[in-house]
Amino acid sequence: MDETETAPSPSRADSSRSRLVEAAVRAFAEKGFHGTTTRDIATGAQMSPAALYVHHRSKEELLFVISREGHLATLELLRRARAADPDPAEQLRQAVRDFAVHHARGHTRARIVNYELAALSEPHLAEINGLRRAIDAELRGIVVDGVATGRFACPDPRIAAAAVLSMGIDLARWYREGGGWSPEDVGERYAEIALRIVGA
Amino acid sequence: MDETETAPSPSRADSSRSRLVEAAVRAFAEKGFHGTTTRDIATGAQMSPAALYVHHRSKEELLFVISREGHLATLELLRRARAADPDPAEQLRQAVRDFAVHHARGHTRARIVNYELAALSEPHLAEINGLRRAIDAELRGIVVDGVATGRFACPDPRIAAAAVLSMGIDLARWYREGGGWSPEDVGERYAEIALRIVGA
Repeated sequence: MDETETAPSPSRADSSRSRLVEAAVRAFAEKGFHGTTTRDIATGAQMSPAALYVHHRSKEELLFVISREGHLATLELLRRARAADPDPAEQLRQAVRDFAVHHARGHTRARIVNYELAALSEPHLAEINGLRRAIDAELRGIVVDGVATGRFACPDPRIAAAAVLSMGIDLARWYREGGGWSPEDVGERYAEIALRIVGA
Repeated sequence: MDETETAPSPSRADSSRSRLVEAAVRAFAEKGFHGTTTRDIATGAQMSPAALYVHHRSKEELLFVISREGHLATLELLRRARAADPDPAEQLRQAVRDFAVHHARGHTRARIVNYELAALSEPHLAEINGLRRAIDAELRGIVVDGVATGRFACPDPRIAAAAVLSMGIDLARWYREGGGWSPEDVGERYAEIALRIVGA
């Protein structure tokens, strides 16, 4: 019996939780959410299935934890970019570069986060959709500010923002290590492309 | 017992097959591939589960049929766009507009096609991946031609083509009827954005 099953100390519990999250990411990436059993995840984290339930109520809750972490990280990097510089062009450059680097580095996780949304429970999906709306709003805010201040010229800021966001999201689908581009290469290129899209 | 279960005439068989495909699209969209039973699909097509198996070997085969149709339609519209005009800018405009209109109109189907790839069997996935590579190659071909002839100016044609493709693919995720844009509106805007991306 795994010692973490009974009264885990806080730091050991944290470490077990993150091992389980890592194992869940690997299993979901390999077999999909529906093809993964809690036993697969527990085995991947070198724990017993019972130990998994000490830390997470279900496989769905692990998916939710992965999804929330991913969306919060994206939201945070967009907010940092907006706060970093008063110039919307610099905000957009940093936002798109950081988003692309983050999604390229974490493409396995990002793919799970984007492709397994339908497996979330209704309350969890509602929370994730709230984060997605906040992400949309941050990016759209940069484009709208840029148009309002005359820094950007584009006929429809909302469509332009949707296109920029799509580039970032879909990166998780196509990006692979060894494809000839580092995450930083893609980040720089995507930032230039976003500035073209908004007519900076 | 449904009369199509035994010796269906060719035209009646076609009609049954397309009813099953339509019912599968509705069921997969509502419940996801893994949450859908063959009974759900048969009921949606007003057939018995046994009748379903006359026309399709499995739920997975229905997904494959939907996926192949969707990818073939995209490949064909890109090929038509390339053949329609010698100017790469006009090719790109038509390609992106038609792709966006097609994906916005058929966003439910396109979402299934893009998000349930992991549920395909290995040989079916290999065939779909072949079509996806052909789609990539058509779009990249337009951008490369445009750069070669000096019609486009962009630092990395492959990244530019990937960004344009991402816009089109991810449209299926965010587009909804009643969101304020017709498929044609989005098509026109996306065509303009694609021309900005490649520096036409």
